[in-house]
Amino acid sequence: MDSMDYGVLTPAWAGTPAAAQATDAAFVQAMLDVEAAWVRVQADAGLCSAQDALAVTAIARVEKYDLVSLAARTPDGANALIPLLGMMRAALKESGAAASASTALHRGATSQDIIDTALMLIASRTLAVATGPLRRAADGLATLAQAHRSTVCVARSLTQHALPMTFGLRAANWLSALLAATRQLEAARLPLQWGGAVGTLASLDQFLAVRETIATSGELSDKLAEELGLSNPGVPWHGNRIPVTTLGAALGGVIAALGTFGADVLTASRPEIAELSEPREAGKGGSSAMPQKQNPVHSVLLRNAGFSAPGLVATLFTAAGTAVDERPDGGWHSEWSALRELLRLAAGAADHAATLAEGLNVHEDKLLSNLQLSGDAVLSERIATVLAPIFPGGKPAIQQLVIDSLTGSTRLRDLLRSQLPVSACSDADLDNLLDPSGYLGSADRFITHVLAEFSAWKESWQPQH
Amino acid sequence: MDSMDYGVLTPAWAGTPAAAQATDAAFVQAMLDVEAAWVRVQADAGLCSAQDALAVTAIARVEKYDLVSLAARTPDGANALIPLLGMMRAALKESGAAASASTALHRGATSQDIIDTALMLIASRTLAVATGPLRRAADGLATLAQAHRSTVCVARSLTQHALPMTFGLRAANWLSALLAATRQLEAARLPLQWGGAVGTLASLDQFLAVRETIATSGELSDKLAEELGLSNPGVPWHGNRIPVTTLGAALGGVIAALGTFGADVLTASRPEIAELSEPREAGKGGSSAMPQKQNPVHSVLLRNAGFSAPGLVATLFTAAGTAVDERPDGGWHSEWSALRELLRLAAGAADHAATLAEGLNVHEDKLLSNLQLSGDAVLSERIATVLAPIFPGGKPAIQQLVIDSLTGSTRLRDLLRSQLPVSACSDADLDNLLDPSGYLGSADRFITHVLAEFSAWKESWQPQH
Amino acid sequence: MDSMDYGVLTPAWAGTPAAAQATDAAFVQAMLDVEAAWVRVQADAGLCSAQDALAVTAIARVEKYDLVSLAARTPDGANALIPLLGMMRAALKESGAAASASTALHRGATSQDIIDTALMLIASRTLAVATGPLRRAADGLATLAQAHRSTVCVARSLTQHALPMTFGLRAANWLSALLAATRQLEAARLPLQWGGAVGTLASLDQFLAVRETIATSGELSDKLAEELGLSNPGVPWHGNRIPVTTLGAALGGVIAALGTFGADVLTASRPEIAELSEPREAGKGGSSAMPQKQNPVHSVLLRNAGFSAPGLVATLFTAAGTAVDERPDGGWHSEWSALRELLRLAAGAADHAATLAEGLNVHEDKLLSNLQLSGDAVLSERIATVLAPIFPGGKPAIQQLVIDSLTGSTRLRDLLRSQLPVSACSDADLDNLLDPSGYLGSADRFITHVLAEFSAWKESWQPQH
Amino acid sequence: MDSMDYGVLTPAWAGTPAAAQATDAAFVQAMLDVEAAWVRVQADAGLCSAQDALAVTAIARVEKYDLVSLAARTPDGANALIPLLGMMRAALKESGAAASASTALHRGATSQDIIDTALMLIASRTLAVATGPLRRAADGLATLAQAHRSTVCVARSLTQHALPMTFGLRAANWLSALLAATRQLEAARLPLQWGGAVGTLASLDQFLAVRETIATSGELSDKLAEELGLSNPGVPWHGNRIPVTTLGAALGGVIAALGTFGADVLTASRPEIAELSEPREAGKGGSSAMPQKQNPVHSVLLRNAGFSAPGLVATLFTAAGTAVDERPDGGWHSEWSALRELLRLAAGAADHAATLAEGLNVHEDKLLSNLQLSGDAVLSERIATVLAPIFPGGKPAIQQLVIDSLTGSTRLRDLLRSQLPVSACSDADLDNLLDPSGYLGSADRFITHVLAEFSAWKESWQPQH
Repeated sequence: MDSMDYGVLTPAWAGTPAAAQATDAAFVQAMLDVEAAWVRVQADAGLCSAQDALAVTAIARVEKYDLVSLAARTPDGANALIPLLGMMRAALKESGAAASASTALHRGATSQDIIDTALMLIASRTLAVATGPLRRAADGLATLAQAHRSTVCVARSLTQHALPMTFGLRAANWLSALLAATRQLEAARLPLQWGGAVGTLASLDQFLAVRETIATSGELSDKLAEELGLSNPGVPWHGNRIPVTTLGAALGGVIAALGTFGADVLTASRPEIAELSEPREAGKGGSSAMPQKQNPVHSVLLRNAGFSAPGLVATLFTAAGTAVDERPDGGWHSEWSALRELLRLAAGAADHAATLAEGLNVHEDKLLSNLQLSGDAVLSERIATVLAPIFPGGKPAIQQLVIDSLTGSTRLRDLLRSQLPVSACSDADLDNLLDPSGYLGSADRFITHVLAEFSAWKESWQPQH
Repeated sequence: MDSMDYGVLTPAWAGTPAAAQATDAAFVQAMLDVEAAWVRVQADAGLCSAQDALAVTAIARVEKYDLVSLAARTPDGANALIPLLGMMRAALKESGAAASASTALHRGATSQDIIDTALMLIASRTLAVATGPLRRAADGLATLAQAHRSTVCVARSLTQHALPMTFGLRAANWLSALLAATRQLEAARLPLQWGGAVGTLASLDQFLAVRETIATSGELSDKLAEELGLSNPGVPWHGNRIPVTTLGAALGGVIAALGTFGADVLTASRPEIAELSEPREAGKGGSSAMPQKQNPVHSVLLRNAGFSAPGLVATLFTAAGTAVDERPDGGWHSEWSALRELLRLAAGAADHAATLAEGLNVHEDKLLSNLQLSGDAVLSERIATVLAPIFPGGKPAIQQLVIDSLTGSTRLRDLLRSQLPVSACSDADLDNLLDPSGYLGSADRFITHVLAEFSAWKESWQPQH
Repeated sequence: MDSMDYGVLTPAWAGTPAAAQATDAAFVQAMLDVEAAWVRVQADAGLCSAQDALAVTAIARVEKYDLVSLAARTPDGANALIPLLGMMRAALKESGAAASASTALHRGATSQDIIDTALMLIASRTLAVATGPLRRAADGLATLAQAHRSTVCVARSLTQHALPMTFGLRAANWLSALLAATRQLEAARLPLQWGGAVGTLASLDQFLAVRETIATSGELSDKLAEELGLSNPGVPWHGNRIPVTTLGAALGGVIAALGTFGADVLTASRPEIAELSEPREAGKGGSSAMPQKQNPVHSVLLRNAGFSAPGLVATLFTAAGTAVDERPDGGWHSEWSALRELLRLAAGAADHAATLAEGLNVHEDKLLSNLQLSGDAVLSERIATVLAPIFPGGKPAIQQLVIDSLTGSTRLRDLLRSQLPVSACSDADLDNLLDPSGYLGSADRFITHVLAEFSAWKESWQPQH
Repeated sequence: MDSMDYGVLTPAWAGTPAAAQATDAAFVQAMLDVEAAWVRVQADAGLCSAQDALAVTAIARVEKYDLVSLAARTPDGANALIPLLGMMRAALKESGAAASASTALHRGATSQDIIDTALMLIASRTLAVATGPLRRAADGLATLAQAHRSTVCVARSLTQHALPMTFGLRAANWLSALLAATRQLEAARLPLQWGGAVGTLASLDQFLAVRETIATSGELSDKLAEELGLSNPGVPWHGNRIPVTTLGAALGGVIAALGTFGADVLTASRPEIAELSEPREAGKGGSSAMPQKQNPVHSVLLRNAGFSAPGLVATLFTAAGTAVDERPDGGWHSEWSALRELLRLAAGAADHAATLAEGLNVHEDKLLSNLQLSGDAVLSERIATVLAPIFPGGKPAIQQLVIDSLTGSTRLRDLLRSQLPVSACSDADLDNLLDPSGYLGSADRFITHVLAEFSAWKESWQPQH
């Protein structure tokens, strides 16, 4: 039986483009990329030959390595870089590369340099894949917010009907959370790790001193970061895990923002509520036993991601808060799979959210009829505010009528009318008062605010690759 | 690039026998096993033909399925069983099986029946693989406890030297935690899930009614549980996730018990302390940059597991506490990878702990010299207890001398001697008083107690497969 | 401004009897109780005078101590026992007690002995308070399960309508989870911690040797456990934190079982669903702004507890898995507030669950009308099973009609009738087939099973104090 | 027995200034402050009288309210604001305030507006108290980094000796993490929550419309934010919990950065290592049983905070990812105590870190002797780099000598000398090669980099209140 994972137990990202970006193979490729980039940087600086760089680059392809064997040797040194390096050296030898290529390989580096940098590289690649779906999701929500500025519906608090609102505002609220979370993710820096065995670059500096080169280790680090498309933090962060908690928390934030979107769609998809439904797609959402059943799978998977992320975020904070020595003793090792899974969950959730936001079916009739379910009582707050000064008996009398309308069969309007002189409030005024679309407060202003934030963000978009 | 995981980012279980037991492929095999067992149970009850059972059993081998494709279709229905069932039906057709085989397949079941039962099946298989190492680890610790009953060392509290103890007691303490945790894991029941679409078995009961068979759905469930080696809880537990939290907490307990063993070995392996060292094994623990360095990798990996588990345990409790409806809406989906990873971590940790407990190097000279580092002051508690009644100035005078001995260069013994009349306490009595091996209290009794518990447990061991 | 907490930010337990059992004051009282019990045990064994025991017992009342001042001195030694001991000694002196009372106080003990034992004592007391509500909750659910054995309703999967079931089965499912969790909590042992400074009882044993008493430290530990109503584990567990994770996980299980009950009631309380409602109680559930609104507060608070517990459970597992030395260096300190809060949450949740289970309003009309919402399609599984062999075109033709009925306006019954010869299936048979109450499978059997488990448990109940 | 908490079980913040900032009483005061500020804003806008504002401000003092009673009524509406509002209205009446004051109180607001804003207010106040200690801690670390630029010591990896470094770099690494975390905390916005019952401000807007005032709800929100010293996000965030996860993650980051500092000091304080020791303070760190023992309590408490925070951070992400409707149903309620505890832990940890960083004893002799413990082998990486080209037998021969030196009794220097011709490497050159202070790489450059970042940050400091 093989020892591979495919995503069969993690439906939130299985089958999405994210699935390919943070696999074990992708991580090994990233380690290979870091090692190869470092040899190329050395070659550019005259510290090894161009042929050495070509030779290392040629063997830096994951297809060349037996990952089953690599995984089996991973516990020997408690990480995968150590056996990979041995395999790379063997591959270099087999390829007929000069011994100098093997010497240049990994020069001055430590396994944590390669692993941390490779994790940031797969972060960068997974985020690149997630960018499109995150933008599509945001765009879809913005379109819904705009399209439904005037679609009146019921707002709920602690699961109960509260007041009228618009569906456009609900979409704007989802968008507002997604914007806040996505911008934090964009702001999270993905730093190069480059410090050598204990974060002093002593070996590299010694080598440079022996070579009497003019290149400094600082300049070489800059070039390596540039080659890999990462930021250079200026100092190693072997024991400072704040870059990891920051990235993890930003991923957790995106997952949370999408989780709340999914949770609301799930509620609204219940047959009794039926305000929203997921886009029907061939072959999706079917039940193995019940043909009539259409499962809201995108929402379920968003919620799935929302439940899975917090424990992983906690693992990153635990590792960060217990790191010891110049290079940690077990906590660091716990970060790898937690961070990788957060990357996949965020990117997978982005994919499902994009489909959902773009294709969401909005059932305006149900939005309206659900609002009407609570009758005039949903406006009791407004009624009290407006009528209290002119109603015989004031606010207490009004509140009694609200309760009477809930327990009896007479509409609140009629109860009010029976006690409220027409001279104080005409029939038309009373009808206006009981019109939910007249009691939306600043809903429209808030939609405009969020859409403006979205537009400002959209202007910052770089074209995607 | 492939979409598989190999364990490259999870060194705590990569390369151990556990790695093969809870992979995606192992999980798919378990789902296939459940489906095939169910058809065989039906055949035994005369509900389908023996040929149908053979046909389904024949195609119930994971090698026959493209897991990449399966994973890609997993999000369509938010789980892997739905596409797998389609693939199985296609395979049956291709194999020339009768249509009745396809009809018998999955009869009356729901995807959650298969998935929950398959998870318990991989739990059972992973625990079977973990049993040997857990017993070896316990046996190794018991041997250490027995062998070092009289090896005096320093006991530490809040990292500081406190009093003498024996290394045997320390080993007994590790064993005590491991025993408590392992027995809970043994007590955790691995239940069959069998309830049909909503936990009523309506479809199966309907089928049995139509067939006018004498078999009842209750009896068939019993037989299925027996066929799979699982317990039958008597009722479905689609929405009751306590069986999952119980198993997860038991796994977390084992990982914690081993984590604390690893943490202590790590501390004791520090060069300045050097009381313990990991067994040297060829090719293990080497550093990529520093040949002189031998890393305590087994301990690091135990600690790694100890850091990774709690977040996963929390995910299981979150899913359990938020389950809704007859079958949950996202929380359930989060259990799968969390439970699977806890299984792998526990079994992988058991493997490392067995190696470590069996091969641990105990450096008695350093145990002794570290104890001596604190000088006579490590016995200040005893000195105060015994001498206070006879010492001029009583306990305060003694405490002052303790402090003097710590700040000055005179041994506490000599300071005491200078003020304590020989008539009150002879030189020999004073030497005895300052002998750490005379101040071990109930250490030996506690070792005996734990070893007796271990022996009782050992008698319950079934021979392993 | 005072430095006290009252429960204002933790509504799940504020205002319940649980609130008084695990406060800071209750914990200090428990520490005082342990110290006093220990002196009484000594007096009984002739190791100090009866007067000493009376003197210590007299000052072992929390009202005598300034907790603000105690809290302020807590960080000095990283725990509260150290300053409390100083305060107790001062109180003894002030009370005119003999110096021997002060000497007997805390004899041979370490702060961890007192703190761990005191935590188990407040666990015991909080669980005693929780027992009644847990039984009431279970009894209430059992009553619902029995009363609604025949109340047909719709079962849901992934939020969507699936098949018919009975509300009695739903209640039985809640009960099943609660039973499983509560029995685990009952099984969790609450052990005495008694080991002295490093878990050897060296000081106590030394004292006993000097006194040439026949009492042994083992016998004294037994008596202390008995005096406090705790179990005696036979060995100290300073570094073995499995007793804590076991208790914490059991508490988490109860909270999860109640959380899922609350989550289901919340869903069913939505106005569009309206199958259940919370008991109306004067002054509860009102909204500050909307008089018509009745909030399902008990359910919200159960859900609140369900969300709060998993992170605390994780903290206990983290502390357990990283404990070092004979007495841990920070993880142990993290257990205290996590365990205490889990105790309060479980007991508070039990209280809300009892009220909810006993007073839940079941709206049978809505249970029925929601079921009818999905029309005959909710029985499509049954229809396919029964009619496929006799329907022209078989299962595919039936499935097409199901889809037609969902998209068109004709009832599925009529569509079926139009293609199904009366000779194959009479009108009466077709009506029977489409009667949801005929498609409940083993629902009744499962209710009976759970109620039998409940009855067996009930027989084990001791009368409560 | 009272129902109050004092911090007795949470030593990380008990007794620090933080203890007073996030208590239940402080939170109630913050709710009172928000309500009073809102009435003052109304008065300024002419929406109520100045007398009303004075009347409300006068009763907005926590001392006026019975918090035990308030807590007891908290579960009635699942939050504390609802009963507090009733108490405030009673207090207004009793104070003889005009009825209009009671009407202006809470006008247009919902309980979540007040509670979320009050939480941000106590966040603001707790952070204000934490700012000083965080700066002191950073300053202390910067001073250590500067003072120990040339203090050579051993760097460790996976607990083992690796290479030389300077203690200044270790301090700079702690500082680097603290800087990164603190700047994120400073960047976290503390937003006003102002949306009314469902986030539309409908009631307030209705009131303004009736009053025909020129003030808009947007302007009033701006003024309220200004009055409270919070930021105005422009839209309500009742269902968007990203502001809470962002703040929680930033607090978790600070705690993690300080936790790793504490963990390193704990290791270095072990008697066998003894490179660092905590400042001795009268009455701190003593043991109840052992006078010779000085516990590193500040470090233990930093580690304690580091263990306690991750579970609380996870709770915030769980609540955020599962929020439903316009106002959530239980997750929100779980945020309160988690966020409050993170605030206290961060501020308490800051206090301990400041004391520790300012008073840390650095034992240079032990830093040196521990480095020497590994002998010349700690430079094996350097030796290989420099000597390989000139050594007979090259790198393999050197590595053999390293191993010989570890297993035998001859110094590596002498083994090297015996095979290395003086012509190739003079005695002086060999001694230089084996001088650890010559193999520090970029340690100094990295210190300079971190100190420059610190200085830049320091320039941004506002004088504290």
